[in-house]
Amino acid sequence: MKSYQFELSFTVRDYELDTQGVVNNSVYQNYLEHARHEYLKEIGLNFNELHSRGMDAVVHKVELEYKRPLMGDDSFVVRMNAWQQGNVRFVFEQNIYRIPNDELTLKGLVTAVFMQNGRPIRPPEEIVKALRKS
Amino acid sequence: MKSYQFELSFTVRDYELDTQGVVNNSVYQNYLEHARHEYLKEIGLNFNELHSRGMDAVVHKVELEYKRPLMGDDSFVVRMNAWQQGNVRFVFEQNIYRIPNDELTLKGLVTAVFMQNGRPIRPPEEIVKALRKS
Amino acid sequence: MKSYQFELSFTVRDYELDTQGVVNNSVYQNYLEHARHEYLKEIGLNFNELHSRGMDAVVHKVELEYKRPLMGDDSFVVRMNAWQQGNVRFVFEQNIYRIPNDELTLKGLVTAVFMQNGRPIRPPEEIVKALRKS
Amino acid sequence: MKSYQFELSFTVRDYELDTQGVVNNSVYQNYLEHARHEYLKEIGLNFNELHSRGMDAVVHKVELEYKRPLMGDDSFVVRMNAWQQGNVRFVFEQNIYRIPNDELTLKGLVTAVFMQNGRPIRPPEEIVKALRKS
Repeated sequence: MKSYQFELSFTVRDYELDTQGVVNNSVYQNYLEHARHEYLKEIGLNFNELHSRGMDAVVHKVELEYKRPLMGDDSFVVRMNAWQQGNVRFVFEQNIYRIPNDELTLKGLVTAVFMQNGRPIRPPEEIVKALRKS
Repeated sequence: MKSYQFELSFTVRDYELDTQGVVNNSVYQNYLEHARHEYLKEIGLNFNELHSRGMDAVVHKVELEYKRPLMGDDSFVVRMNAWQQGNVRFVFEQNIYRIPNDELTLKGLVTAVFMQNGRPIRPPEEIVKALRKS
Repeated sequence: MKSYQFELSFTVRDYELDTQGVVNNSVYQNYLEHARHEYLKEIGLNFNELHSRGMDAVVHKVELEYKRPLMGDDSFVVRMNAWQQGNVRFVFEQNIYRIPNDELTLKGLVTAVFMQNGRPIRPPEEIVKALRKS
Repeated sequence: MKSYQFELSFTVRDYELDTQGVVNNSVYQNYLEHARHEYLKEIGLNFNELHSRGMDAVVHKVELEYKRPLMGDDSFVVRMNAWQQGNVRFVFEQNIYRIPNDELTLKGLVTAVFMQNGRPIRPPEEIVKALRKS
């Protein structure tokens, strides 16, 4: 099995479903964002604190492949890896698996850049270190 | 200038902004979905009627490139093209431009499949015809 | 017919629907918030500018009566009145009518307070004036 | 301390915050809805199954008093009581407390009706029994 640096479990909430009875496509980005921010917290970076210091992690690119729909009452886990790409970019590989059978429901690839005063900056030491270790 | 088959204008609503004061990344998928459904309506296909006939347009893949953030009070237009790909797939090219300066803020590519009873089907005649004409 | 100080039209977007095929209950608050902010703009108060000056209109109380559901493809109008209550409170009466038959779908009453540095303040002159006139 | 029949814990997710850095007012209704549906599950009623049997719990009235804002990274608990009112109505008292200090952040009162084919019906036995016991 593929190995991951971090994972976070969720349960589908009924307000996230649309008329097709499945999780609306846009909601997956909410799940992935929340998982990224929890991952950042684990390595010592708080998204809201960073913002209050004028530093923002800005998403540059999102690629999502929808493999199977999540439905009402489903539980699932977002599993992820992160790595640096060049000087300023980070890539988050974020895949969603339905619990309990570990079916792949979504494959995601999210590229982000840290910005300050409207410009890309060298990323905070915490994230560079965390990625080096992994 | 690039030509498009369809366009739809929006105004950013404040509840769509996040703590960074910009439209949250996931909200762009809402804009794109709404524009796709309005496009389908224009060519004679109603998403909700299709669903009540057991037929669903299911998003298979989404690729989004965030070029510039949309902010509070911004107006913008989603401009789009659509074409068939193989037997069952449709591709929607959907780009967002800020009004009034026509700055490209997001480049999107959305691949969808029409499904019935859990299987991909030949798409409804209306959409095949509409795309042939274009 | 009841008279109103301000109104704003909307069209239901499919991502706002839930599995029951109707607009999710929470989404009405989005509609009402957007209508309030557009009303404030009309009388010369920009919600985002106010916030950047450290002044926030904070909702204190919301009462919503759901009369009829809004469905996919419905158009509707939010009609509203606003008045001052005591020194620091504002009340927004916000009712939603489905177009074209003017059926009442939601009755809303929203009480707000202007805050600065965590304390209620006398509201900005623009809003006091606008309400006096009305 | 006030006693409650059911409670459910949450953590604020950053996408739920608005430009004021606090949870957007509409999002509280998402929290309350999710807590109600989990409560229904606990007493043997699944919202999505009910809907597929043509029976819907429809919210008739919502009253929310916002006491203190929830911020990024906050954890909180929704605590609730439910009782029958007359033949067809249910009232859910739903209060939100910030963890760990148990500060009251929101007081909510939600009235719902079970509907079938567009008409109020006697509620499912499970909920009547559950409420009788409590």
